[in-house]
Amino acid sequence: MPMPTRVKMVEVGPRDGLQNEKAIIPAEVKIALIDKLSEAGLPAIEVTSFVSPTWVPQMADNAQVMTGIARREGVAYPVLVPNRKGLEAAIAAGAAEIAIFAAASESFSRKNINCSIAESLERFAEVITVARVQGLRVRGYVSCVLGCPYEGEVSFDVVAGVAGQLLQLGCYEISLGDTIGVGTPGRAQTMVDVVSRLVPREKLAVHFHDTYGQALANILAVLERGIATVDSSVAGLGGCPYAAGASGNVASEDLLYMLNGLGIETGVDLEHLMAAGNYISGHLGRPSGSRVARAMGCSPHQITTTANA
Amino acid sequence: MPMPTRVKMVEVGPRDGLQNEKAIIPAEVKIALIDKLSEAGLPAIEVTSFVSPTWVPQMADNAQVMTGIARREGVAYPVLVPNRKGLEAAIAAGAAEIAIFAAASESFSRKNINCSIAESLERFAEVITVARVQGLRVRGYVSCVLGCPYEGEVSFDVVAGVAGQLLQLGCYEISLGDTIGVGTPGRAQTMVDVVSRLVPREKLAVHFHDTYGQALANILAVLERGIATVDSSVAGLGGCPYAAGASGNVASEDLLYMLNGLGIETGVDLEHLMAAGNYISGHLGRPSGSRVARAMGCSPHQITTTANA
Repeated sequence: MPMPTRVKMVEVGPRDGLQNEKAIIPAEVKIALIDKLSEAGLPAIEVTSFVSPTWVPQMADNAQVMTGIARREGVAYPVLVPNRKGLEAAIAAGAAEIAIFAAASESFSRKNINCSIAESLERFAEVITVARVQGLRVRGYVSCVLGCPYEGEVSFDVVAGVAGQLLQLGCYEISLGDTIGVGTPGRAQTMVDVVSRLVPREKLAVHFHDTYGQALANILAVLERGIATVDSSVAGLGGCPYAAGASGNVASEDLLYMLNGLGIETGVDLEHLMAAGNYISGHLGRPSGSRVARAMGCSPHQITTTANA
Repeated sequence: MPMPTRVKMVEVGPRDGLQNEKAIIPAEVKIALIDKLSEAGLPAIEVTSFVSPTWVPQMADNAQVMTGIARREGVAYPVLVPNRKGLEAAIAAGAAEIAIFAAASESFSRKNINCSIAESLERFAEVITVARVQGLRVRGYVSCVLGCPYEGEVSFDVVAGVAGQLLQLGCYEISLGDTIGVGTPGRAQTMVDVVSRLVPREKLAVHFHDTYGQALANILAVLERGIATVDSSVAGLGGCPYAAGASGNVASEDLLYMLNGLGIETGVDLEHLMAAGNYISGHLGRPSGSRVARAMGCSPHQITTTANA
């Protein structure tokens, strides 16, 4: 299977990233970050979550952020929505796209969203239906696709089943998340192959965390299996790279550096992306979680990698 | 080309790693580290450099370390040697294998070893001849294979030429080093393909630095091109992962985690390897540069990844 010539990068830093940072970032900083990300050319930016501020205080400013950003033509701005109430709030704030979050592990589903996988899908069926009637697009997440923090191994058939149901319920894209970052390239390929029996590859995205340092290798492996949509987080937001057990998303800058080197088009500009990452890293008061950003920050001589010779 | 079923991991932490750390580590700690590494099952461990202590004070204890380690049957203990004088000292300390270090970039060669590429190869010709007459094995390095800090792009034909000459001079293995970590997977594959016209793939090794976060992806890419020997550094020694512009070697633990997940045999035990990495990290007074070591250090539940299903 040939590598894709173009990859869609879905930026999840402002939501998945900042939701998992301890610091509470002011709304105006989030808005500036998101605007910098859209200026960098990212085609999709997950903006915020419409969840209870009791559970996720980092996202309490969801409506303020959603209404404050400068929406750029052609850019998708999905927001995470856990239920009907969240959907109403997202619509009131002007969301045109939502994301819903299911799991491939019963234990994780219960601990994370307090219901079984089947119950979560029932709940999402209503949310998706209402959203689509109102003209919103819906993106689906499946978490724990390569392992669960409570159960260990996860069946790829279960992953495929959940992904297939999300597709049937009306999701236009399903993002397969290695939530705890334990996956390795061969298993990632096998997982994608199994899921693609029920969901066409062009409707699949991948979402890797770099907890075990495997994210870019896993992404390379699934690109080789025809996956062309990849989630990432600017500056590796979502896990401090300096702490034990860091569990951040793969850094968008590092992903883009690899894709540029592979000659794969993204429409994203690395300089602008790094500027956005450095901006938010400054507000978090720590160096960027992106190795590319750290290397280029003090490299005496920068190399422009080119496509395969 | 099928992936290799077995990979030889060449541990370079005690030499390439510690040589690039600011801290001076006592000889007895280096000896304990090397013995822990051989107990972990590593088949080759680069022990030290026989270079001038004026230039590399970190390796001034080379003879003490070389004579202090417990040599394990079947394990290779190469030492870096820049010239005839270093070779004599290495032989006096009981070395059975040396490594020599050439560059694929004229500017880097001049800055690093103060002579042109051609002059360095002439010098090495004598060193290799004397070494082989005395029964020593010789490993060759080529640095800057995917980019040079002074020249930028490096010609793959030049890389191949230098590697081919090292082979003809008598090196049993040539390690291709992305010294500044700028490489990406497609270019790494192309480089290996070009070099393999002059050096058989089974005599090639790769040596990636994780400066731009690309090391594991690059390794995966060249495994797919039949490379089965990979250099790595326990705990990612050789570049502080917490500093801007960190330029350490790929961490042995992260490499082994990937190889284990791919079902590729190495003979190396991850638990013992992590113990060695944690030991030296403790002496350096900082967290491990290995993401696997950091993740497993505080993970509530560890996942054992298995070979491809």
